[in-house]
Amino acid sequence: MPVGTQGTVKTVPQDTLEALGAEIILGNTYHLYLRPGHEAIRRMGGLHKFISWPHALLTDSGGFQVFSLNELRKVTDDGVRFRSHLDGSSHFFTPEHSIDVQIALGADICMAFDECTEYPADRSRAEESLRLTMAWARRSLDHFRAHRHEVPWSDPKGCGMQCFGIVQGGMYTDLRRQCAERLVEMNFDGYAIGGLSVGEPRELTLEMIAETLPLLPKDKPRYVMGVGYPYEIEQYARMGVDMMDCVLPTRAARHGLLFTSQGRLNIKNKQYAEDQGPPDPACDCMVCRRYSRAYLRHLMQAGEALSGTLNSIHNLAFYLGIMQRVRDSLAPATGNQEAGSLKLEARS
Amino acid sequence: MPVGTQGTVKTVPQDTLEALGAEIILGNTYHLYLRPGHEAIRRMGGLHKFISWPHALLTDSGGFQVFSLNELRKVTDDGVRFRSHLDGSSHFFTPEHSIDVQIALGADICMAFDECTEYPADRSRAEESLRLTMAWARRSLDHFRAHRHEVPWSDPKGCGMQCFGIVQGGMYTDLRRQCAERLVEMNFDGYAIGGLSVGEPRELTLEMIAETLPLLPKDKPRYVMGVGYPYEIEQYARMGVDMMDCVLPTRAARHGLLFTSQGRLNIKNKQYAEDQGPPDPACDCMVCRRYSRAYLRHLMQAGEALSGTLNSIHNLAFYLGIMQRVRDSLAPATGNQEAGSLKLEARS
Repeated sequence: MPVGTQGTVKTVPQDTLEALGAEIILGNTYHLYLRPGHEAIRRMGGLHKFISWPHALLTDSGGFQVFSLNELRKVTDDGVRFRSHLDGSSHFFTPEHSIDVQIALGADICMAFDECTEYPADRSRAEESLRLTMAWARRSLDHFRAHRHEVPWSDPKGCGMQCFGIVQGGMYTDLRRQCAERLVEMNFDGYAIGGLSVGEPRELTLEMIAETLPLLPKDKPRYVMGVGYPYEIEQYARMGVDMMDCVLPTRAARHGLLFTSQGRLNIKNKQYAEDQGPPDPACDCMVCRRYSRAYLRHLMQAGEALSGTLNSIHNLAFYLGIMQRVRDSLAPATGNQEAGSLKLEARS
Repeated sequence: MPVGTQGTVKTVPQDTLEALGAEIILGNTYHLYLRPGHEAIRRMGGLHKFISWPHALLTDSGGFQVFSLNELRKVTDDGVRFRSHLDGSSHFFTPEHSIDVQIALGADICMAFDECTEYPADRSRAEESLRLTMAWARRSLDHFRAHRHEVPWSDPKGCGMQCFGIVQGGMYTDLRRQCAERLVEMNFDGYAIGGLSVGEPRELTLEMIAETLPLLPKDKPRYVMGVGYPYEIEQYARMGVDMMDCVLPTRAARHGLLFTSQGRLNIKNKQYAEDQGPPDPACDCMVCRRYSRAYLRHLMQAGEALSGTLNSIHNLAFYLGIMQRVRDSLAPATGNQEAGSLKLEARS
């Protein structure tokens, strides 16, 4: 899932995302809550309409940004007080408020409000953080169920908004298990594994996914948050992960890092100054069909904004291509994939 | 003609320019000479191939940027010494060198090296500047004729590269006349009126165009450089001007200024925060069909690069739409228009 932090997958127009075959994108609740504001988006009919994206949308709970962008946050059992990174104004997020904001945004999938446990965290810290996440999951789901009908769009198909729970537990497999079991009892519409890619070694990421995934029901979407490199997303998808999101393809693109069939390519390197070959000879995306490495390098060197756009388009095509190949290689009878596809169906 | 200073019409991909109906774009010789360098572009087969634009291209002579970006330039009869705005390195442009660089870039149309007379300029200054421009026009054309076959592309149609002269003369109509007559004697492939939009009142711009245009042959393209606002380009086109270029539609777009059928619209204004109407209700461009004023304002407020792209696409559509309507309103028998179209035919 390409990440559209502020209601835009940075530098890429929506029709291009459609041409790339993106079926779902993310919005960040924290950013959209602060600007332009969830009430403004509600009044305009919700995020789909506001950003002109008549396909699937997922919003995170805002928790991750509250924790990662705010050094002065204050956490209580009730919620988190934090300051806006834009103007320093004070805000308070509870599980109920996060769900209210997400319902106002009206994505197809919202996420329970959780605390993303930092890495490293000792056992007592991870236990305390998990206690909070599980209590907040319960409150998020209860509030969601009571208010899910308040989305700012009509819902003729009746499939409605869905809410996913997030498994935390730091790098302790027994805590992960405990969390997964409790969330499954609550019966969310889907389950995410959070708190990964926060600085831990890749082997640990893999171990946590491998240990947690079998505890989550196969007939509901299973989502690993915030990953990853191309080889990782392929590996995780083959393990049974249905959904992943990451800013990496677009953020790396803006810094000149291209992902290709031949590995990573830093397009700023002088060796590409007169390289008339396509960014990736094995790629048939709209960028590789038309532009040379030399041109993409020139755009970076010249500080031209088109560079971010073209690099992002290629990287997204590369990532979406990986997932397409994984899907193609799965037998049609695999229930897991079908469930995922159903969940991602575009709203009419 | 949209301006593609550094080999890109800022923020707009080439396929989008094609979809907008752009038939010719500009490259700036000064910028491309400094980065990536004209010899690199020559080795890669010329500017068309380098930027993947298989349609018409025009390069300016570099003179305007040398004069406007360099406070420490030193002008002699032979040429201009200037410092790179990128690294301070010293460079010397003569008419012959400007033409050599432009032949290496290999656009369809190159421009004679001229001195853009500043405004205001007293009569003796304008006369001295004009003397230089006319001597340089002669040298540019002689050098062009001797070397035009050295373009870095094959030329099966044999139409080849063309060279336009530039009428200067400050705001003195008799100097303009003198310059136009001399250039016409030299028999350029087309003629530009330069040295306008340099700070003079609009009435003076109009007067200079009105006085100079009838002196230039109708059966060759007549080009007014560096204009203008929508009402101006329509007015000039109806007077018989065949070509104009300006950074205004794209530069204004990046600052949030949209040109619409209802006048100028500053999309940053708070009044558009929840305005779900299209940027221009009378426009059917790909931006006005899909996005709201509220979304475009949000992108500006959030500092998102997509804002520059979408605003630029609309403004270019608006400008190109004006010119299309002017062309449609001209009788097919008008020789002037036909000559212009022939000259702008895309290279195979």
